[in-house]
Amino acid sequence: MDGPHDAPIDEALPAHVERALADYLAIRHAAMADQAPSFGTAVASLAGFVLGGGKRLRPTFAWWGWRGAGGEGSGPGAEAVLRAVSALELIQACALVHDDLMDASSLRRGKPTVHVEFAARHRERGWLGEPERFGAAAAILLGDLALAWADDMFTGAGLPAARQVAALPPWQAMRAEMLAGQYLDVLVQATGDESGAAALSVARMKTAAYTVERPLHLGAALAGAPEPLVAGLRAFGTDIGVAFQLRDDLLGMYGDSDVTGKPAGDDLREGKRTLLVSEGLRRAGAAGADVLRAALGDDDLDADGVERVRALLLDVGAVAAVERRMGELTGTALAALDGLELAAPAGAVLRELAVTATRRTS
Amino acid sequence: MDGPHDAPIDEALPAHVERALADYLAIRHAAMADQAPSFGTAVASLAGFVLGGGKRLRPTFAWWGWRGAGGEGSGPGAEAVLRAVSALELIQACALVHDDLMDASSLRRGKPTVHVEFAARHRERGWLGEPERFGAAAAILLGDLALAWADDMFTGAGLPAARQVAALPPWQAMRAEMLAGQYLDVLVQATGDESGAAALSVARMKTAAYTVERPLHLGAALAGAPEPLVAGLRAFGTDIGVAFQLRDDLLGMYGDSDVTGKPAGDDLREGKRTLLVSEGLRRAGAAGADVLRAALGDDDLDADGVERVRALLLDVGAVAAVERRMGELTGTALAALDGLELAAPAGAVLRELAVTATRRTS
Repeated sequence: MDGPHDAPIDEALPAHVERALADYLAIRHAAMADQAPSFGTAVASLAGFVLGGGKRLRPTFAWWGWRGAGGEGSGPGAEAVLRAVSALELIQACALVHDDLMDASSLRRGKPTVHVEFAARHRERGWLGEPERFGAAAAILLGDLALAWADDMFTGAGLPAARQVAALPPWQAMRAEMLAGQYLDVLVQATGDESGAAALSVARMKTAAYTVERPLHLGAALAGAPEPLVAGLRAFGTDIGVAFQLRDDLLGMYGDSDVTGKPAGDDLREGKRTLLVSEGLRRAGAAGADVLRAALGDDDLDADGVERVRALLLDVGAVAAVERRMGELTGTALAALDGLELAAPAGAVLRELAVTATRRTS
Repeated sequence: MDGPHDAPIDEALPAHVERALADYLAIRHAAMADQAPSFGTAVASLAGFVLGGGKRLRPTFAWWGWRGAGGEGSGPGAEAVLRAVSALELIQACALVHDDLMDASSLRRGKPTVHVEFAARHRERGWLGEPERFGAAAAILLGDLALAWADDMFTGAGLPAARQVAALPPWQAMRAEMLAGQYLDVLVQATGDESGAAALSVARMKTAAYTVERPLHLGAALAGAPEPLVAGLRAFGTDIGVAFQLRDDLLGMYGDSDVTGKPAGDDLREGKRTLLVSEGLRRAGAAGADVLRAALGDDDLDADGVERVRALLLDVGAVAAVERRMGELTGTALAALDGLELAAPAGAVLRELAVTATRRTS
């Protein structure tokens, strides 16, 4: 045996997270396939989705919160924490499956989204009723199942009781903040709120809190970290998390669709009110703002239309403004990190994660 | 003060469940309204939904499982159990909000369903995009929030650690079985499976396990009940739960819509494959079966069409067959109950619940 699982957890974290998820899902799937075989088939699709890719960002931040606060890197205690932080990927599976349905997205990681997969199954077999409705029902129920199993996996990770209790506040806050962030995102698109404040509040809730700040908080709480260390990690997480979102917004407009996995300009067609868009509207003259507003939420926007908006945002300095903000946030995040006494190698790893993930991609 | 909360929990259980839910939701709502005010407004709608009615059946069975296994009826331990079993209503809120969306139902308890309420809000304010899509997103996210908060309320109920651990197996099984039951229900409608076995497997999972068997199991586990008592309560719960579903199916066809809160014949229009329908198809001649099949899933079925199916099901003996089955199940359930040594007054209360809920309504 010479697989990634032989490497220490620190050095092959995504592979270890996937092992923990595969082990957990195998047990739940087997029980369900036994009890209700046709639901077992649906559960197999969910397991395929969970194990089918992703950067495992949330478990990564949670793991390094744990390690940075002095948690051990191997042994039974570390394995229990690995299971607990891997459960974050099941929350994320719920978020993605439900988000794809809400956005009517047809592709995720280059494969059909869950609602599209089940609608296709319905259509191929010539079942009764509307395929889209069946697909939507399957996506709703499998997302719910992922959310319920996230709690079950966390609760059943084998953590010492006192540690688990200490971790409940960030665990509970994180799930609520993820849903709040999703709702604010949908709401800002609906109201058409063009302010930078609205864009930043979505980024703070949906990306910063849910993806970075709370996972770090969770990991540190599992290690019984003192309050100043928790506060410092959270401050780092909030700033770096917002910076992540700003970079995502730039990639959504200028990124290579082979890398992002989404057609270029999709954020624009979906009418997402990002900080980039907000800066563009604020800086463009009336004519430019009209072009931008017309493009936002236009399902039929073609490549030329996307290109016009790209050029406009560059011309008026919106891209530079967002990059400046990203740089500031990365700076304050790294300064917060420097002030913390983290167990090695967590400080260096978190610095590397912060720098890599907010690096300008050309 | 002379309200229902002054009465012992045993004597005013629904009022006490509502008090526990109101207390919990007030705390979570306040925190969320503070953090993200516009999501707070949405959360207030969810709280209104949870507190706006329902028979509180699942907490009732769980409470009497606890009491029957010797759990106390008042004091701090009883209050913790009250909170834990009240969390079942948050699972149910998720189930109903998501089910109404999947079924495209517009009314629940005489009020607009959550997706309809949010679509109307979008329309009234003239927001951007499609009102229905906004309504669907709000219903998905608020249902998710209810499911996450169910776990949070259960985990934070203040149960002794060992009791909470003992209650995890039924708690976890119940959520998975609820979702499996919902999926099987949707699948059987899609495949058009006409067998009585399919109808009964949906009833067993969706109603019996989720509504009666597992809540009883949960309550008994919280009281540290010995295995034979748990097994006996579960046997009672399975049979009486299936009988509940058969009665619901009869009410869906013959019930007074003022009482059921649903237009008569809606199960038929939705194409639900109940045991009643299965017995009808099996017993009717070819011509009768054609009438029945044509009515199933016909959105435009009028009152005359519903009446024709009603008469047919009576004529061929399908109603009598389902009533016979209900009687048998009630009989075996009560026999299982009689064999158990339950602390008073649980045995009498469970018997009363079983008899009342499966009584023929004329």
